[in-house]
Amino acid sequence: MQFITSKDNPNVKFYRKLSENKKFRRENGMFVLEGLRIIDDAVKENAEICKIFAAESCAESFYSNTDLPDAEKYIIPDELGNKLSDTGNTQGVFAVCRIPNAVPPSEIIKSGGKYVLLHQVRDPGNLGTIIRTADAVGADGLFLSDCCDLYNPKVVRSTMGSIFRVNVSEIPFDEIFPVFGKNNIATFAAVIDSGAVSLTDIDFSEGAAVLIGNEGNGLPKEIADMCDVKMTIKMKGNINSLNAAMAAGIIMWEFTKKKDRHGNAG
Amino acid sequence: MQFITSKDNPNVKFYRKLSENKKFRRENGMFVLEGLRIIDDAVKENAEICKIFAAESCAESFYSNTDLPDAEKYIIPDELGNKLSDTGNTQGVFAVCRIPNAVPPSEIIKSGGKYVLLHQVRDPGNLGTIIRTADAVGADGLFLSDCCDLYNPKVVRSTMGSIFRVNVSEIPFDEIFPVFGKNNIATFAAVIDSGAVSLTDIDFSEGAAVLIGNEGNGLPKEIADMCDVKMTIKMKGNINSLNAAMAAGIIMWEFTKKKDRHGNAG
Repeated sequence: MQFITSKDNPNVKFYRKLSENKKFRRENGMFVLEGLRIIDDAVKENAEICKIFAAESCAESFYSNTDLPDAEKYIIPDELGNKLSDTGNTQGVFAVCRIPNAVPPSEIIKSGGKYVLLHQVRDPGNLGTIIRTADAVGADGLFLSDCCDLYNPKVVRSTMGSIFRVNVSEIPFDEIFPVFGKNNIATFAAVIDSGAVSLTDIDFSEGAAVLIGNEGNGLPKEIADMCDVKMTIKMKGNINSLNAAMAAGIIMWEFTKKKDRHGNAG
Repeated sequence: MQFITSKDNPNVKFYRKLSENKKFRRENGMFVLEGLRIIDDAVKENAEICKIFAAESCAESFYSNTDLPDAEKYIIPDELGNKLSDTGNTQGVFAVCRIPNAVPPSEIIKSGGKYVLLHQVRDPGNLGTIIRTADAVGADGLFLSDCCDLYNPKVVRSTMGSIFRVNVSEIPFDEIFPVFGKNNIATFAAVIDSGAVSLTDIDFSEGAAVLIGNEGNGLPKEIADMCDVKMTIKMKGNINSLNAAMAAGIIMWEFTKKKDRHGNAG
């Protein structure tokens, strides 16, 4: 355990730069966590934690009560904790965590599985909420092509720990798309088009990969055209009022929906 | 059209106090709007707009291009626009809008309708997202008992204009709950309880009122016990990962889901 007093301490500077800079995260293969719950989730899911910082006022209880792995542990002044914080209302605990090695799609994609491919989703809050919902519905894998950075602190925070529980991979579109076909996984493009097949008309029981595009523009036409089926959410109301994360959530709900004991749900 | 230069101008102070203070909003029966799109939605839905403020750099195009109602119109310095803004990235247009008169539940609730009653939902972003989703799915009415203020600027903003399109009423629980029974609308308490009826097992086609509780605590037991059915969302994954607004969205999706042309959806 080591005391740090200066904001110019190299470990503190390392944390801040990881927090602010995507390129630096990638060069170092690390990202940051803030808050008790997400650090706890990281520990439970055996994420590799390299450094931990705790503000003076909570360090004793945090370090003595929390089952932490072997990592560099620091105590920092509360004021410095407030400066490191990305939230404005910090709990005063921070960690640096290693970005896990990429798992090849061939190890994730299995016959009959349920997958989501997000293409150009750019809002960190939306991405985090979608990852959280993928965890809730039990999707078998989530692939991100050309989305905002998965390890952006806003994304990580808004996953509420689901980033450690969901099989999520960043991968270029051209590398992932053909793997679905090779595994006989049908591909479904989510589009806003009243002529497309209704989401509620699709039998996802044999496995599926659902493709969801950018918040404003949807999927590029050439990508939608490559999919086996174009599908749409048909609603009674104002479809434009559906938030992108909510649309993704409804699609994931439908395609992983549990057959209940009366068997009347798809 | 009148120029305002001082932040101490009474109209500017009136706007700010409406923005910040719930009691002041209620005493005056008014709330604030910020941004081009939501002001446009308010105009389209015939909301009563009393005052409009536009920052100098956009006032000319705003006032000449936008089809605005008869209201007090002001031009303010850009700097003052930045100060009025609640978003940090303002478009420089603001309005004061009258809170509509309450519609009695007897005029909203009809046999066969689909209603949502939110009880003690406290997060403005969640409330706004739920209103937006109610608009998308075409719910027939949304009732708020003991929730955060509907006219909180964060709620208004996160509805993305749906606040003007959805039938949404603030009403005490004891006033609204009996009206469902009188109209033969079955009541469904959303609970986290694996013994409750699965959402996918319920036939909502005869109309329904769904009750959804607080983000952290759910519905009070005595309220859940008053409902005709306790229902739950059954998922393959980690149910605790489901965000409150997403859970409400999935429930609203199921209970208003459009029968499509193949008729295989509830």
